[in-house]
Amino acid sequence: MSKKILVVGGVAGGAGTAARIRRLDEDAEIIMFERGPHVSFSNCALPYHLSGVVKDCDDLVLMCPSKFAEQYNIEARVNNEVLSINKEAKTVEVKDLINDKVYTEKYDKLILSPGANPIKPKSITGVDRDNVFTIRNVVDIDKLNKYVNSNNVKNVAVIGAGYIGVEIAENFIHSNKNVALVEAMDQVLQPLDFDMAQILQKELYDNGINVVLADPLTEIHSDHVVLKSGKKIKAEAIVLAIGVSPETKLAKAAGLKIGETGGIEVNHNYVTSDPNIYAVGDVIEVYSKIARSKTRLPLAGPAQRQARAAANHIYNIPNRNNGVIGSSVIRAFDYNAATTGLNEKQLKKAGISYDFVYVIPMDKVGLMPDANPIHFKLLYEVPTGKVLGAQAIGKGNVDKRIDIIATAILFEATVEELTELELAYAPLFSTPRNAVNQASLVATNLINNRFKQVPVTKVRELVENDAFIVDVREKDEYAQGHLINSINIPLSELRERTAEIPTDQPVYLHCRSAQRSYNACLALQGKGYENVINISGSYLGICCYEYFLDQTTERAKIVTEYNFN
Amino acid sequence: MSKKILVVGGVAGGAGTAARIRRLDEDAEIIMFERGPHVSFSNCALPYHLSGVVKDCDDLVLMCPSKFAEQYNIEARVNNEVLSINKEAKTVEVKDLINDKVYTEKYDKLILSPGANPIKPKSITGVDRDNVFTIRNVVDIDKLNKYVNSNNVKNVAVIGAGYIGVEIAENFIHSNKNVALVEAMDQVLQPLDFDMAQILQKELYDNGINVVLADPLTEIHSDHVVLKSGKKIKAEAIVLAIGVSPETKLAKAAGLKIGETGGIEVNHNYVTSDPNIYAVGDVIEVYSKIARSKTRLPLAGPAQRQARAAANHIYNIPNRNNGVIGSSVIRAFDYNAATTGLNEKQLKKAGISYDFVYVIPMDKVGLMPDANPIHFKLLYEVPTGKVLGAQAIGKGNVDKRIDIIATAILFEATVEELTELELAYAPLFSTPRNAVNQASLVATNLINNRFKQVPVTKVRELVENDAFIVDVREKDEYAQGHLINSINIPLSELRERTAEIPTDQPVYLHCRSAQRSYNACLALQGKGYENVINISGSYLGICCYEYFLDQTTERAKIVTEYNFN
Repeated sequence: MSKKILVVGGVAGGAGTAARIRRLDEDAEIIMFERGPHVSFSNCALPYHLSGVVKDCDDLVLMCPSKFAEQYNIEARVNNEVLSINKEAKTVEVKDLINDKVYTEKYDKLILSPGANPIKPKSITGVDRDNVFTIRNVVDIDKLNKYVNSNNVKNVAVIGAGYIGVEIAENFIHSNKNVALVEAMDQVLQPLDFDMAQILQKELYDNGINVVLADPLTEIHSDHVVLKSGKKIKAEAIVLAIGVSPETKLAKAAGLKIGETGGIEVNHNYVTSDPNIYAVGDVIEVYSKIARSKTRLPLAGPAQRQARAAANHIYNIPNRNNGVIGSSVIRAFDYNAATTGLNEKQLKKAGISYDFVYVIPMDKVGLMPDANPIHFKLLYEVPTGKVLGAQAIGKGNVDKRIDIIATAILFEATVEELTELELAYAPLFSTPRNAVNQASLVATNLINNRFKQVPVTKVRELVENDAFIVDVREKDEYAQGHLINSINIPLSELRERTAEIPTDQPVYLHCRSAQRSYNACLALQGKGYENVINISGSYLGICCYEYFLDQTTERAKIVTEYNFN
Repeated sequence: MSKKILVVGGVAGGAGTAARIRRLDEDAEIIMFERGPHVSFSNCALPYHLSGVVKDCDDLVLMCPSKFAEQYNIEARVNNEVLSINKEAKTVEVKDLINDKVYTEKYDKLILSPGANPIKPKSITGVDRDNVFTIRNVVDIDKLNKYVNSNNVKNVAVIGAGYIGVEIAENFIHSNKNVALVEAMDQVLQPLDFDMAQILQKELYDNGINVVLADPLTEIHSDHVVLKSGKKIKAEAIVLAIGVSPETKLAKAAGLKIGETGGIEVNHNYVTSDPNIYAVGDVIEVYSKIARSKTRLPLAGPAQRQARAAANHIYNIPNRNNGVIGSSVIRAFDYNAATTGLNEKQLKKAGISYDFVYVIPMDKVGLMPDANPIHFKLLYEVPTGKVLGAQAIGKGNVDKRIDIIATAILFEATVEELTELELAYAPLFSTPRNAVNQASLVATNLINNRFKQVPVTKVRELVENDAFIVDVREKDEYAQGHLINSINIPLSELRERTAEIPTDQPVYLHCRSAQRSYNACLALQGKGYENVINISGSYLGICCYEYFLDQTTERAKIVTEYNFN
């Protein structure tokens, strides 16, 4: 007898499960329920409607119900909301929202993929005003876009500087709005570490976004918002992008087990606490491969894998389940930022002993057009050297480097193993010793105590405490901007000028990107210096780290002039 | 007592070894000998001088001897040729080419990195004419460029369609020359398979290069060349780029062991048959990790790793040595082509049992600007599923996909493992189920016999033999061009029109990129069909495979119209 499969939710997870089931079983009866008017749309592309990159918002819909019927023999019932589940009877109660009728549908297997809801905290005064928007689907983005255009909105406040918030802010800049990006935490994009986030904040700031950090929203009015600090920001339209919460109402009411993180608990094969009910996508709790703990990860890639696995299990096909590592990427104006694995905050929380390297090589051979620095941070376990994560920011192909690390993490690579990576090189694409090779070589040197380093985040303290800092760049480079309190001994003169460098105190060295100063460290060590420390990231890293904070807070500058090249 | 290290050759391998030795040993005396006037130049960027991308050919020189002295305390003796090695005395005889003096220099350790010479076969009539050029260094490219400009050369013949040949041909097109690219084999770029090479040949052809295949050069004259077929090609300047041979003269004369492939034989740590002599770079024989045999691989990335390893071994630091896999990438006009691991030809030669998948997903979400197909071929071992290689061609970030596979090969991944890859996704960078995931899923399905496929290379034979071919694209797509002899049953009508499909003979299915036809195959199998076969690559792949051959050879077309989108 053929199986009857019901699917709740018709976007990534739901549609993916339904399609895979059809491929495995031509005879199954498959019905997909979606509360809204659309199945299978591109969530991640929604912000691009605001700038006209995606002109027609109908284009965001990838497959209409008739196509599901024709191509997959899957019935996609849009505008039909599943109200409740009866696990014992194996039925769901569904409301046809167009005809306002409630009916019951039987199932052999039920797939839950209802997604996650944007958070709209009741604690914010005015959160239910007409000028407040959240973005979850095509209807939402259409509504926001029409509101902004028909009300001649000039000023927009985007609340929450995660991926969606940053993308919405950028797309509003491209449609000539004044944009404030307001974040309760002290940095944009939590998947990045604080140091790396500064580089992106600079880019947002330089492109005219009013980036306001560490200041939660408290009140919304018709033409402005008020933050906790008392700061008022002009805004006729407000977009809340402060996060999502898994849509577990249906699952909870049915008595399905909810995990510690608030998502539906599932097993290796995405089976819930009921053996006939599966759950996939943003609604579930997943397992972090690196932290070895439960987490949530509302991303499209993992949802696709979960969908396939759930379908497989219904048909007794065994699955792999490597947990999740969390890879993501964003473009913000001319910069790309990508990340994989855990960042420093997450590693501290997970209690994993780690260290990191921060290198800034070029993304292609410097002679080639559009060669640009890549800011690359590689995190690894101490003392095992196991790769834990990486973050990369720059104008070029940073995502390539992160995908390499994501692949390495799947295979539980160590930094020593990565030194043997043999990647595709040509001058237009990379450098012979590329960012990943270089970072893993530096990490291997650190693990073997060949040299010591200090991160850019500590440089301010060093300067303030009158540490002995040697800038080994050439004189013309030093003249264009340098750390205050640093002395300039170019690497080319270092060996003859060691008399100027004390042996009885720590000596900090830097150059532009920390490569020449690394050579300088080893030269001094070879001459008997016992406490020389390389400033990782060096002058380029220091400028990037200090710039945004210097522009937006009152404090003393520690560099004479910024230099970002 | 401090060590005295001599290095023969001052480019990638030699300079890298010297620099690493300095980092490990501040006291060593290091002398680097280079026959030519330059050390440390960018070989791979040489062709870009011809089009003016690199305007000044001095820019191709990365480090001058004085910089080596100042920054590394390394003496770089340019215009000094090492004539011979005395292993017993541990000395070399050197000729100062400027002052025409011969002198002897002692060593504790000697590093050989003399590189490889462009091949100039004596069998070609006129090979020593003034209008014949080979490209190895800055002097060569400067000479060629000046010759072409001062003699008002209009027609250039580039002989050999490897990486350097293709790059030189393209750069000459950008400087408005008429360019013939002549290759003795039946395809350009041997690292690619014949099927994938067709896509690049189309691009070269469409950009005005006269691509002549399977026709070796026999004669060179002042204004034309003659090929084996008798074909004459107008050319006032001729560039020979038919390969390189390792410069082993010095090593042979010293009695060092030469390997079966003609390169210097080295061990795990790049020590030659003499314990005090190391060799790195294009001159050595390396070990293919996948083929498990000796090979040569004149590339910059491996040379860098070898340099570090040789230096390490001198200072008793243990090395990893994973052999080589051979990753590379090239841009040819608007297309990028990247490859890693072994291709079909190499796998056959190595006697490794393999299969492959060919998928053509988009490189980013279709809604985004500049979204383009990626032609992605993934080769894997049968029956183990171990990844053996990949090739990717398209306008977008194909190198990213190949670096992922190169990383996977380092960790001896299987296609099943790759299905769990969690890569960075955003609509501007990739698709939720990206090329690597998709190819590995298809391969996993094949390994588990979930469906059957036939490659684009077999389609002509199917058409000629009146095979039953069903095109499951929609009617409007079929109308724009289709396989002759195919019948059109859109996937959307397939389930109602099975009566038109015979059960007693093989049924071949295709769509645009093989995704819909894959669904169609499974639907028919579900309805009891036992012999349905998907055409991998489908119509897009067929058009790409057939186009160049249709343009350049006399034969019947098997498609009514080409469609490349």
